[in-house]
Parts: sequence; structure tokens; C-alpha cells
Amino acid sequence: MERIYNFSAGPAVLPREVLEQARDELVNWQGCGMSVMEMSHRGKEFMGIAAQAEADLRELMAIPANYKVLFLQGGASSQFAMVPMNLLRGKTSADYLNTGEWSKKAIKEAKQYGAVNVVASSEDKNFSYAPTQDHWQLDPNAAYVHYTPNETIGGVEIFWTPDTGDVPLVADMSSTILSRPMDVSQYGLIYAGAQKNIGPAGLTIVIVREDLIGQTVPGTPTMFDYQIHADNDSMYNTPPTFAIYMAGLVFKWIKARGGLKAMEQHNIAKANVLYDCLDASGFFHCPTAKDNRSRMNVPFTLKDAALDEEFLKGAKARGLLQLKGHRSVGGMRASIYNAMPIEGVQLLVEYMKEFEKQHG
Amino acid sequence: MERIYNFSAGPAVLPREVLEQARDELVNWQGCGMSVMEMSHRGKEFMGIAAQAEADLRELMAIPANYKVLFLQGGASSQFAMVPMNLLRGKTSADYLNTGEWSKKAIKEAKQYGAVNVVASSEDKNFSYAPTQDHWQLDPNAAYVHYTPNETIGGVEIFWTPDTGDVPLVADMSSTILSRPMDVSQYGLIYAGAQKNIGPAGLTIVIVREDLIGQTVPGTPTMFDYQIHADNDSMYNTPPTFAIYMAGLVFKWIKARGGLKAMEQHNIAKANVLYDCLDASGFFHCPTAKDNRSRMNVPFTLKDAALDEEFLKGAKARGLLQLKGHRSVGGMRASIYNAMPIEGVQLLVEYMKEFEKQHG
Repeated sequence: MERIYNFSAGPAVLPREVLEQARDELVNWQGCGMSVMEMSHRGKEFMGIAAQAEADLRELMAIPANYKVLFLQGGASSQFAMVPMNLLRGKTSADYLNTGEWSKKAIKEAKQYGAVNVVASSEDKNFSYAPTQDHWQLDPNAAYVHYTPNETIGGVEIFWTPDTGDVPLVADMSSTILSRPMDVSQYGLIYAGAQKNIGPAGLTIVIVREDLIGQTVPGTPTMFDYQIHADNDSMYNTPPTFAIYMAGLVFKWIKARGGLKAMEQHNIAKANVLYDCLDASGFFHCPTAKDNRSRMNVPFTLKDAALDEEFLKGAKARGLLQLKGHRSVGGMRASIYNAMPIEGVQLLVEYMKEFEKQHG
Repeated sequence: MERIYNFSAGPAVLPREVLEQARDELVNWQGCGMSVMEMSHRGKEFMGIAAQAEADLRELMAIPANYKVLFLQGGASSQFAMVPMNLLRGKTSADYLNTGEWSKKAIKEAKQYGAVNVVASSEDKNFSYAPTQDHWQLDPNAAYVHYTPNETIGGVEIFWTPDTGDVPLVADMSSTILSRPMDVSQYGLIYAGAQKNIGPAGLTIVIVREDLIGQTVPGTPTMFDYQIHADNDSMYNTPPTFAIYMAGLVFKWIKARGGLKAMEQHNIAKANVLYDCLDASGFFHCPTAKDNRSRMNVPFTLKDAALDEEFLKGAKARGLLQLKGHRSVGGMRASIYNAMPIEGVQLLVEYMKEFEKQHG
């Protein structure tokens, strides 16, 4: 099969142009005689690649100078522990918003290191919405406030930035980073696994205000200490070099397409095509509250779950792949990250209408 | 420049054939329409890639069935904490052999979690040798015995397997794994960063006897719990998918060349070419004790350190790259992992003889 449309929630579709460039220079990067994978991380070639990737990310997100950008490993799952281990800073509790499976995992892990105050939860409605801030019970003595602006599984996105005053705001942006402009200065720490909007799996990006790091709870592994990585420009140990290179290519690709404002317009357009189809349908149903409909992950169900398999089979025949929903939600999920072209969403919607006609 | 000979200590040279295959299928893996980087780790394509990689590694190393093979992230530096966090199992101290910079880092990190008994050290002679076991002061109550069979920086390799009785033996095999046959059943745990003999940076392989895992010290991050990864076939969270794929290609490459016995012969032949040249020279000097000369990393110095830069410049002009020694040892270091062809070592030796003639 030629290239298809890949709706996987992550690892996810990458820009075709980026993959082609990576292919063309895979064996011999820019005539240096080596693959990027073979370069010493301390050699001038790779140091240049890493520095350029960081500079481009800083430009794209307008990251202020007092924030460190770290290229780490271990995914958001490692951040669930690293955040409390580094940001409790002698305090005894932290605030968490609970909007879905990823919030729950972050909360569970944080409880190993201190008390957790759940400021609000949407578990009452199967995580189909996000509580607005007037429903949050913030603790002014919290070490930080953690939330998940986009729940990849539930397809719930929060488009406003919480106001937490002097308490640092921490966000798991794994599946929303780079999809729209964000004011980094309103955050104490942002983290994201790369495998959605950034690049291949195996890279985790952390953006952290430098005054917040340097204190860890006893027993924190050296590799879980942000300060160590900050002091060593993310080269305390061997970083995931090829994944950093790929992320750098993606950053260039976003810049060439107009940056995050252009990405946002592109993502709104794609999301509208799909949500309009869902709203007009009497057969497909989107469980997410309208104010929180994610532009990145769109879960939807069929009127009759017995038709799920047939729907997936027909989708596959049209080159529309990896649409099966997460087991905790059921039905379908279309992840439509930056690199998903609008043509992919249009083809999906055409197929949905056709399927509804036949089975509705 | 066409492809060169890359003597980097890691990330390091990869087999040319592996890089070419990765290039050829980078955009569209085996006609599935996706890059390996874009595949869901829970889809059948990637599950197949990961299962095959594990099966090939098990075959190559003859890994017994009661050992788990884990594909993790974070490098050996993370293992320095994970090993004590998981293997202390209620005991209060562990034994460590100190043979160089990597041993020292492992020891320093282990001290966060328990007492460390250094069974022997070669620091007295600048880590130029490894103490034989008759000089070790083993503690029969130790939770485990840790050693580094190949010190990448000092170029010190231990070719015999320590006998630790019922106390589990733990080895950091980052720069010796797959270079020769080893009897896995003599070890409790083996770990290795991938970026030397396995594949690209960002993947760490752990081989652990399954009865040793399942107890962790309080405060261990979930991601640092071997049992979690074992229970989830290394897919508790998103694994470094592309690095696992590359490792799988390297495993196939080794199998096609006759497995670890053939690799050992190949590596002995290469090492002999280089050490013979060093021994015959009155200009170049290898600081390592003869019994511990690493087949993977060969440090050597020039008679006059003022000539180092000129030596490196001339080497580069001949396509012999990344020969500069680690700052703690000085001089040169030639890393000659599995993927380094003997032609590369022969060219290096030719150049060394020529250089000695001119400057000796």
C-alpha cells in the first residue's frame, strides 16, 4: 500500500516531507560520512543539531530566557514522578485537576511523594468534560498545580489557561504541544512526550522555569533531577540523539508552514470538518462536551457497537488506519495531530457519511 | 565525504547494511504505508517488530526462559539507580567492584539507597587494570555484586566471569554486550545502553532473572520498577519504538554473520591488529594491563602530547574520525565495536606507522 492516513494517538503520523528528508540523509548526514545515529553526542555535528532544535523550539513557542528546555527520556510516565520529586521543594502537598486517565496516573504517582489535593474532577461524567476554574478548590499552600490540557484518551481539551496566582502551574502537554500558541510564561513547567506532535517516541521535552529546580526529595535518582540535566544541556548522559534530530526536522517543518498560529488554523479547520460531521449525524456520536472538544483526539461511537469491526474494516480498505478507540472509552478515536493533512479528515468524513447511509 | 571510519565510543558506528535497510524502508515499512516511527506501539506491525527483536536477542545470547528481557529508556545512568532500587530487596548493602569512571558513577548512585562495599579497586593505578577475584573482599550478605566488565573510558575489559556464589551478579555490559558469547545464567541482571553494539541511543536493554524483581525501595518511581515493565512486555508506556526496530535489524545482522562466536573472532582479529601495532611502537603507548585490554575500546597515547592535534588532523583527512581520547585519560581512543570493519583498523594502523615514522 502507498502511504495511508494514520489516525494513531501516538506514536503518530509524521510529516511526509520530514520522513523523506530523514530517509535521504539517513546513511550520510550532510556529507559528513556518518548517520546521525552514529554521531558522538559530544561531537560538533550533533551538538549543532541539538542546539538548532532547541533554538527552533524556543522561537516557535516564544520560550522566555528564564526557562530551561530539556531533552529527556522516559515519556510523560517518568514526568509523573519527576514533577513531584523536583517541585515539592519542601512543601507537603500539590494540587491536581482530574480530567481523565492521564490525570489519574499523574495523581497516583504523585501520592508516592506527598499529599495530593484533587481540585476538581470530571469522573462523575466519565471524563467527558473539564471543570471550569470556578469549580476548582485550589490550596494556596500547594507546591504546584498540575493539569492535563488535552486528555488523549477522552479527547477532552482545555483551551483556557488556569490562573493559579503565585503557585506554579504544571501541564502535561503531550498531545497538545505545538498544536496552537501558548503563553509559556504562565507555566512553571510544561512536559510532553514527543510521539504525538514532536517526533518519534523516546524523547520527552520539559520546559521549566529555572528558579523552580535544584531541590529534590531524598532518594531522587540523579537521572530524575532536572537541575542535573539543565546544568549539562541535556547531555549529562547520552541523549536520544536520533529522536532529537527528528524533532528538529519537525520544528523546521512547522516554522516553514507559519508557526503555531498557522498550525492552530489548520487544526481548527480539520477538527471542524470532523465535529460538523458528528453533529449532523444521527448514527455517530461524540461524547465530549462542546467546550472541551479536543482538536487533536476525537473519540466517537457508532449507534450500534456491533458495527465497530465492520467500520474499521471498511476504513482500512480506504487507507484510513488506527481508528480503533481506547479500550476505556470504546468506539473510535481519530487523532488528527499537526501532521495529519485535511485530506485525511475529509476522506474519513466521506467514509463515515457513506457508512451511515448504509447502516443508519 | 563518502562514508568514513568512525571510532566514536558511543553513539557509535552501525553496520552499513543496517543503515541502508533502515533508509530503504524509512517512509513506508514493508508496504504498510507507514514509517516504523509512526506505528502505534500496540498495533500488530510494531508488536511483531518488538517480538522478533526480543526473540533474536534471546537466540543470540542463549537467554534462559526464566530471564526477562526489557526494552527500556534512560541509559546505564538510569540503571545505576534502578539496580539498587529493585535488587536490594530488604538487604542493606551491596558489593561493587571499582574499575573506572563508570563503576564510580554506579557506586555513587547506589549509595543513595544503601551501603556500598567496594570489593576491590584499581584506582591505585589510574584504572589501568582490573583486580582478579582473589583480591576481592566479598560480603556474603550483600544483596548483589555489581561490576563493569568493560570500562569504555579506561579500555579495561574483564574476560572472566566472577563467581559470587548465591549472591546475584549484576553487570553493566553497555560496551561489551554482543561482542562475545557470555553465559547469561551466571548473572542475576545484565544491563546495557544500546548506543555501542546494539543500535541508536535512547534504548536500554535489561536482562534479569525473574525471581529477583518485584520488590522496590519506598519511593521508587513506577517507571523504575522492573516488575512493571516485565508485566507489560516493556509496553507499560510508549517504548522507544524506532530504536527497538534498529536494534532488531542489528540482531539480524549479527545472526547472519554467525552470531556471537563469529563476532568474537572478528573482534579478536581487529583488536590484535591494533594492539600489535601499539606493542611494536616506541612512539605510541597503551596504558592498559595486557590481561585487561578491551577488544572494544583501545586507549593510547602519543610520546608527545603536543602532537595530539596533528595526529587527529591527519586522521581526519584519511577519514578516520572521532579518535580523541576521553578527557580523563587523554591521548586517543579507538572504539572498535562489532560494526567496525577490520579495514578501518588496518587503515588506522597504517596511518599510525606512517605518523611514527615522521615524528618518532
